[in-house]
Amino acid sequence: MKAVTLLEKGKIAIKDDYNPERKLGEQDVEIRLMACGVCGSDVHYYTHGRIGPYVVEKPMVLGHEASGQIVRVGSGVTHLKVGDRVCMEPGIPRFDSAETLAGCYNLDPELTFFATPPIDGCLCETIIHPAAFTFKLPDEVSYYEGAMVEPVAIGMQSATKAGIRPGDIALVYGAGTIGIVTALCALAGGCSDVIIVDMVDSKLEVAASYKNIHAVNARTGDLKAVVDDLTGGAGCDVVFECSGAGAVVTGICEHVKANGTVVLTGIPLELPPFDIAAAQAKEVTFKTVFRYANMFPRTIRLIRSGALDIKRLISKVFEFNDAVAAFERAASGTAGDVKIMIDCSKI
Amino acid sequence: MKAVTLLEKGKIAIKDDYNPERKLGEQDVEIRLMACGVCGSDVHYYTHGRIGPYVVEKPMVLGHEASGQIVRVGSGVTHLKVGDRVCMEPGIPRFDSAETLAGCYNLDPELTFFATPPIDGCLCETIIHPAAFTFKLPDEVSYYEGAMVEPVAIGMQSATKAGIRPGDIALVYGAGTIGIVTALCALAGGCSDVIIVDMVDSKLEVAASYKNIHAVNARTGDLKAVVDDLTGGAGCDVVFECSGAGAVVTGICEHVKANGTVVLTGIPLELPPFDIAAAQAKEVTFKTVFRYANMFPRTIRLIRSGALDIKRLISKVFEFNDAVAAFERAASGTAGDVKIMIDCSKI
Amino acid sequence: MKAVTLLEKGKIAIKDDYNPERKLGEQDVEIRLMACGVCGSDVHYYTHGRIGPYVVEKPMVLGHEASGQIVRVGSGVTHLKVGDRVCMEPGIPRFDSAETLAGCYNLDPELTFFATPPIDGCLCETIIHPAAFTFKLPDEVSYYEGAMVEPVAIGMQSATKAGIRPGDIALVYGAGTIGIVTALCALAGGCSDVIIVDMVDSKLEVAASYKNIHAVNARTGDLKAVVDDLTGGAGCDVVFECSGAGAVVTGICEHVKANGTVVLTGIPLELPPFDIAAAQAKEVTFKTVFRYANMFPRTIRLIRSGALDIKRLISKVFEFNDAVAAFERAASGTAGDVKIMIDCSKI
Amino acid sequence: MKAVTLLEKGKIAIKDDYNPERKLGEQDVEIRLMACGVCGSDVHYYTHGRIGPYVVEKPMVLGHEASGQIVRVGSGVTHLKVGDRVCMEPGIPRFDSAETLAGCYNLDPELTFFATPPIDGCLCETIIHPAAFTFKLPDEVSYYEGAMVEPVAIGMQSATKAGIRPGDIALVYGAGTIGIVTALCALAGGCSDVIIVDMVDSKLEVAASYKNIHAVNARTGDLKAVVDDLTGGAGCDVVFECSGAGAVVTGICEHVKANGTVVLTGIPLELPPFDIAAAQAKEVTFKTVFRYANMFPRTIRLIRSGALDIKRLISKVFEFNDAVAAFERAASGTAGDVKIMIDCSKI
Repeated sequence: MKAVTLLEKGKIAIKDDYNPERKLGEQDVEIRLMACGVCGSDVHYYTHGRIGPYVVEKPMVLGHEASGQIVRVGSGVTHLKVGDRVCMEPGIPRFDSAETLAGCYNLDPELTFFATPPIDGCLCETIIHPAAFTFKLPDEVSYYEGAMVEPVAIGMQSATKAGIRPGDIALVYGAGTIGIVTALCALAGGCSDVIIVDMVDSKLEVAASYKNIHAVNARTGDLKAVVDDLTGGAGCDVVFECSGAGAVVTGICEHVKANGTVVLTGIPLELPPFDIAAAQAKEVTFKTVFRYANMFPRTIRLIRSGALDIKRLISKVFEFNDAVAAFERAASGTAGDVKIMIDCSKI
Repeated sequence: MKAVTLLEKGKIAIKDDYNPERKLGEQDVEIRLMACGVCGSDVHYYTHGRIGPYVVEKPMVLGHEASGQIVRVGSGVTHLKVGDRVCMEPGIPRFDSAETLAGCYNLDPELTFFATPPIDGCLCETIIHPAAFTFKLPDEVSYYEGAMVEPVAIGMQSATKAGIRPGDIALVYGAGTIGIVTALCALAGGCSDVIIVDMVDSKLEVAASYKNIHAVNARTGDLKAVVDDLTGGAGCDVVFECSGAGAVVTGICEHVKANGTVVLTGIPLELPPFDIAAAQAKEVTFKTVFRYANMFPRTIRLIRSGALDIKRLISKVFEFNDAVAAFERAASGTAGDVKIMIDCSKI
Repeated sequence: MKAVTLLEKGKIAIKDDYNPERKLGEQDVEIRLMACGVCGSDVHYYTHGRIGPYVVEKPMVLGHEASGQIVRVGSGVTHLKVGDRVCMEPGIPRFDSAETLAGCYNLDPELTFFATPPIDGCLCETIIHPAAFTFKLPDEVSYYEGAMVEPVAIGMQSATKAGIRPGDIALVYGAGTIGIVTALCALAGGCSDVIIVDMVDSKLEVAASYKNIHAVNARTGDLKAVVDDLTGGAGCDVVFECSGAGAVVTGICEHVKANGTVVLTGIPLELPPFDIAAAQAKEVTFKTVFRYANMFPRTIRLIRSGALDIKRLISKVFEFNDAVAAFERAASGTAGDVKIMIDCSKI
Repeated sequence: MKAVTLLEKGKIAIKDDYNPERKLGEQDVEIRLMACGVCGSDVHYYTHGRIGPYVVEKPMVLGHEASGQIVRVGSGVTHLKVGDRVCMEPGIPRFDSAETLAGCYNLDPELTFFATPPIDGCLCETIIHPAAFTFKLPDEVSYYEGAMVEPVAIGMQSATKAGIRPGDIALVYGAGTIGIVTALCALAGGCSDVIIVDMVDSKLEVAASYKNIHAVNARTGDLKAVVDDLTGGAGCDVVFECSGAGAVVTGICEHVKANGTVVLTGIPLELPPFDIAAAQAKEVTFKTVFRYANMFPRTIRLIRSGALDIKRLISKVFEFNDAVAAFERAASGTAGDVKIMIDCSKI
């Protein structure tokens, strides 16, 4: 079958002889792919051939943000049937590991994840997947939205770990895809207002198009004034670090409230200086985020309810057969693109 | 000055010689009343002369859901000034009690509360109040909404104690004032959907006018079907008991999810049978609610942001000089009234 | 092989032709039984033939509190080897269920549990068990103690769910096996003092033999005085209900502190009246307990460290071949017996 | 009266004409000092004349770790009486601040603290103090132990914020006074074992004298082996950073378990590099500590119960009249001193 394949660093092609060894297990389903988003990590493997310890050493199918339709179900599957519209959680843990049993399966060191070498991604005609990690989409949620559940789930993990209380005020650093979805999840999760900071106006404009998101350009705006105005000078209940910028990490406690929470979602390339005394003076709690666990069903619910309006984040749609162009556009880093979607309905 | 006074059980009058002994302390403000809601407890003192151990033994000014304008500030007050539009938290604890220092000042046994015998309420021309319990209203929040912060704060306390996570599904028993504001707070606090159950259609209609609130008549509807449809059969993450009905308490775990939370806000008149084994089979956590603590600022923020649209809950407005009629209407229990408001701007 | 078998209500025998159909899976181990405690539920099936919906309809091997030695390991098992001394967690969930993935596998409705009809227990020569639910015993922990990890884990689940903070004071109602182990776990879990209440002096004497456990006979002692003395009149931070007595449940909030926690571990036979208003006045949180999840490793650690001194709870040891006598003694309800142990080393 | 006074940097004297302007308020008590510990911050003001923004600009009485006996009570005080043996919490917040009302009065920016310029400490004959921050000592707790409640409360705040669950394993970096009391509080708070790391053997010896504390010299020992042995390779549930060493902060996640907690108590002089990716891979939560709130009563209870055996931490006792020598010894940094106590009973 056809598969969007990273042959080596810098070289993507749609192969048509992809033939993975696989068997439909009792608790598995087979899914015909319908949509798949392009993620920064896909692009990074394309442009750099590696992410940290994960190195592309042989051709690898890309893609992990996907939705599709069930075409076959294992004999033990009861909650899904042929024809169901679904999206897939891409990281599969060992089900009896200590981490899984403790409720944090995302931290299982034996977890395998789509499109993380040497594991193939899902940008191909059909995939076989555990039913437990395959989630039915309600009629109101499109395949494109279904494919976006995965990146939104990172924002949901962040918002959930933040322990937001109704009426909190949040501050998000970074208005990239993760920053924006985190801001949306913070709002959907109970914040009255979210302030978002970046240095690129085109990104901030997307964020500012949502009610109760207050966009501030770090170069030209007055963040302190916005925070003081919204919080009466008390500072923000929750601060999300989604920029990955070292200087942001070092100053992360400036606008947080006493006893507030900072969520570290962005991954700085270097080790930024950590101002512990500033954190202690407010007894700040720091939560860190690694993907997500148990977030897909609740993300789907908030998309269906309208609380997470993510359709407007799709900047551009490519057909499956133009997937190479999709990755090239993503790699070129066109400012203002939030999410590039690949339509797989006509493979 | 004028004061709406409960002379004795069944007898309310607007007295014009109210002259409480009082002094503006350093940390106090004086407030000209602008609006005051009619609460069920006011009505209950009117109709029954007592609530539990609190007995009306001498004339008492009514009212505790109020907003107004600052007319005088104590010498130590820095965050409020004359002319500020405000609302007031009616229960004042001892500030150095163990409960206050532990963050639960609402549980301080020495707390005094407006219109709880023998303490006078605030339905009079001006009151003196601690600045720390007086909260500035943003321009977007009207005096009527300001007066409703108090009852909404009970829903906020419930929603906050529920520990809602983004995308939870809630079930609220009882569509009275507290049930409806609890449903709104659950939605504003991160639920994707709230199911609300009652037996009176006129109440359910008000609730159903909000997006993502699903109203079910317990007599004529199929609650289980609605729960199963929204939760995929898993049950609701959070269940709020706002009906005070004993039978509801006994069956409260039927529609809650494994490891879910039940919040007990309603106060049954008798002691209902408690099905502990049903709770244990799901390891349900029960939270109980007694008024609120630290809820006013966050409630005001959610009203300002639009997440809590409470204006439509005001069923009828009376002028201050018609306050007796307001209480009579409330006492008559006109179905469909959610909140009766007294406009105090023209005393 | 030999197996202690409940043939029908009231009739236990050691059968010697037990031959369960079973296969050592990749992630399984085979264990030679060395010790097994007699549990109230075993005895209840013996005397009543059922517990709630679970009915003994065909012969069933008894026993679920067990330790043993590994005699065979599946090909995928890495953390255990032949000869290891271990204890076994008796309830096996479906590993990919929503409950397991959420960290509460004990609530999985498909969970199977030793000696709960129609599942056989483990009182036989060898059993096959998932390696993930088989825990190595340190040298310092004997087989008898290993067999007691299971009942102690219930106390650990209760103490863990209580959210004990260092220096809390706990009150335990009921000085049966579960009450005593709960008291020990509360102490080991950070309480400075535990008050335990019962009406049977012989049980209270066992409890009182531990430092910092204060035993009170509900008939002859003055519980309020003891609570006031230890808590300065504030009440207990945590109250554990392990008596199953309805009247205790109704009055459970009397001695709890404002904002305190009640853990409901005991299972009343009827539905006791629930004093919600008393709970609300203190905003009490109620936790409910259903067996345990993720408790075996931490229980073993506290036994090894000496913080849980459970050896003295073994009232009497029977040889495997005298197992019927063990169950008869347990069924006779000899006051003062905390735990009857069956030594299986010489089957 | 006599007072141990820091005249200027490097110069301490016992003045005998200390005469602070003060009045016994309704909610105050007057206390005759009986014992006072020497704290590192006292010594730092002595040797450096400042700590961060706090500069000694005029003579200041030293001391904030104190116990004494009530000699006078304000008219509104009900829980204390003349003759009571007590210890005092040294930081007094504004009682109606937002932080106090939220339960974190230690974070109130208007808090005043003994012996923090320009506020005088308590090393003098008598002091006047709010009754709410004065705690009765049980007969079993000596004045010396009472004076140590303050530093131990920092360990208690750390152990409490860690959210220890029964049977957790903790790792403490740094075996100074705070490191050792933190280790003791972690044990008393439910850990089965605590590993403590330092590079000075004399400090480690004190720590190792306690059961279940495992001392490791970072230069000569094998920390990883000890962690693996105790945790089965899973890592420690809680890690306390009490060394203030930047390199420790950078590597702080090495030995923490997936989903574990790090408590940052030590204050590094510089801003250490922060390995966020290492934290994210385990979704580590970081708590930070600023003194304590609501810790005195529970600390006293654990000292009384014997769970916190702190007597052996007193390295040397000086009479009040030899207080200058006490500070000189502390300033000289004699290795192995954990706590120097000043006996004030014979002023």
